[in-house]
Amino acid sequence: MPVYHAVFNIVSDRRPTFHPVTDQVKEIVEKSGIKNGILIVFSQHTTCSVMIQEASDDVNYWGTELLMQDLVNVLEKIIPTCKTEGDYLHPGPEHIREAGKRDEEPFWSLNTDAHLRSILMGRSVSIPVVDGQMQLGEFGRIYFADFDQVRARERIVTVQIVGE
Amino acid sequence: MPVYHAVFNIVSDRRPTFHPVTDQVKEIVEKSGIKNGILIVFSQHTTCSVMIQEASDDVNYWGTELLMQDLVNVLEKIIPTCKTEGDYLHPGPEHIREAGKRDEEPFWSLNTDAHLRSILMGRSVSIPVVDGQMQLGEFGRIYFADFDQVRARERIVTVQIVGE
Amino acid sequence: MPVYHAVFNIVSDRRPTFHPVTDQVKEIVEKSGIKNGILIVFSQHTTCSVMIQEASDDVNYWGTELLMQDLVNVLEKIIPTCKTEGDYLHPGPEHIREAGKRDEEPFWSLNTDAHLRSILMGRSVSIPVVDGQMQLGEFGRIYFADFDQVRARERIVTVQIVGE
Repeated sequence: MPVYHAVFNIVSDRRPTFHPVTDQVKEIVEKSGIKNGILIVFSQHTTCSVMIQEASDDVNYWGTELLMQDLVNVLEKIIPTCKTEGDYLHPGPEHIREAGKRDEEPFWSLNTDAHLRSILMGRSVSIPVVDGQMQLGEFGRIYFADFDQVRARERIVTVQIVGE
Repeated sequence: MPVYHAVFNIVSDRRPTFHPVTDQVKEIVEKSGIKNGILIVFSQHTTCSVMIQEASDDVNYWGTELLMQDLVNVLEKIIPTCKTEGDYLHPGPEHIREAGKRDEEPFWSLNTDAHLRSILMGRSVSIPVVDGQMQLGEFGRIYFADFDQVRARERIVTVQIVGE
Repeated sequence: MPVYHAVFNIVSDRRPTFHPVTDQVKEIVEKSGIKNGILIVFSQHTTCSVMIQEASDDVNYWGTELLMQDLVNVLEKIIPTCKTEGDYLHPGPEHIREAGKRDEEPFWSLNTDAHLRSILMGRSVSIPVVDGQMQLGEFGRIYFADFDQVRARERIVTVQIVGE
């Protein structure tokens, strides 16, 4: 059975970012030659998520689509942005020691809010592929979200398709 | 490798509705002839979700199972029902213009709460199929949720199975 | 097309528990012989979830990793622990009657919070398998979460892989 694997990168900012990746994923489906099956768009990063939503058309001054900013506002209420150590239990002292061994700056670990938002929003979306087309309906768009607010980073978007 | 695709419709109401669809999905598994694999039940609609939960047995006067009404009550706290424009950032003016070109009434876009609830709850469930049976345990039931409160609509439930 | 199915058990406590299961799942991937495909780790229990996160390194006095305790604290705010009947609409009288027919104690049904937390957190994770390796990145670890606080139980963790 055909299995197709592809990755591509996006670059995030020091604020929650939502990258429209539908076009890249569509190209991968075409290249794969798989006509029918299941596709997943997956984040291997534990402060990121993947989601499907409609395009919001309007953006704020940061360029963030308004619906995604509404989502950030909801998340801020239930999982406030981590400003300094002690806001959340994590990161503890052992975590900071371990991060230090990897040459990480201590403040890089002040992204507990991003980890929690990422758990809540999930790691991937699964999409049916039928006759070579993702079944996203008229309005469905795929977004790769990076909730990490402590540094801008290059992120890997993983696409995996199984089918025939 | 066998891939099986099927769709069926449900009709929602102008309030959050939770449609038990386990029996329809079971029938599709049987028809597919696939004995072992992965099945997804998927919503192509961006104000809907799919979830697995136990049957609550009791219902309220609207016919909503009590556990699902508890879920609505939780969601209402964190993502209040959108009553009018300005409650959320979305829909903005450009979105309303675009919707107008599709002959949509402006109030149809006052379902921001439903979009956000749908993002939070996810787009699909993935279920292992073993010996022709979904592995739902004794209590697992599949529900298709429509969070849109601005109009009643016909909705498409998509089932996709890959396996052998 | 190869499909591989495996289960193993964990034992939960009368508090939210988060079981690291990455090593067990890795062993299953090796045994399966599947080199490329999609893997799901799935809970058939309606008060449990599966999630991917980084290891938090530090634990509290209960042995819970701090990031997971932060998650419990967030969930407690939006879905408070059910202490007695009436805290939530579910369980209703019919549910208690049905549970009684299965020889369940009434208090076993006072786990509405766990059902709701489980709906919110989802039922499974999907992971790409490439060259025999799960694509979890450097930090991704798989956790099986049991949110049920009314009794300690043996739980089934289900792993399903499709691929080649």
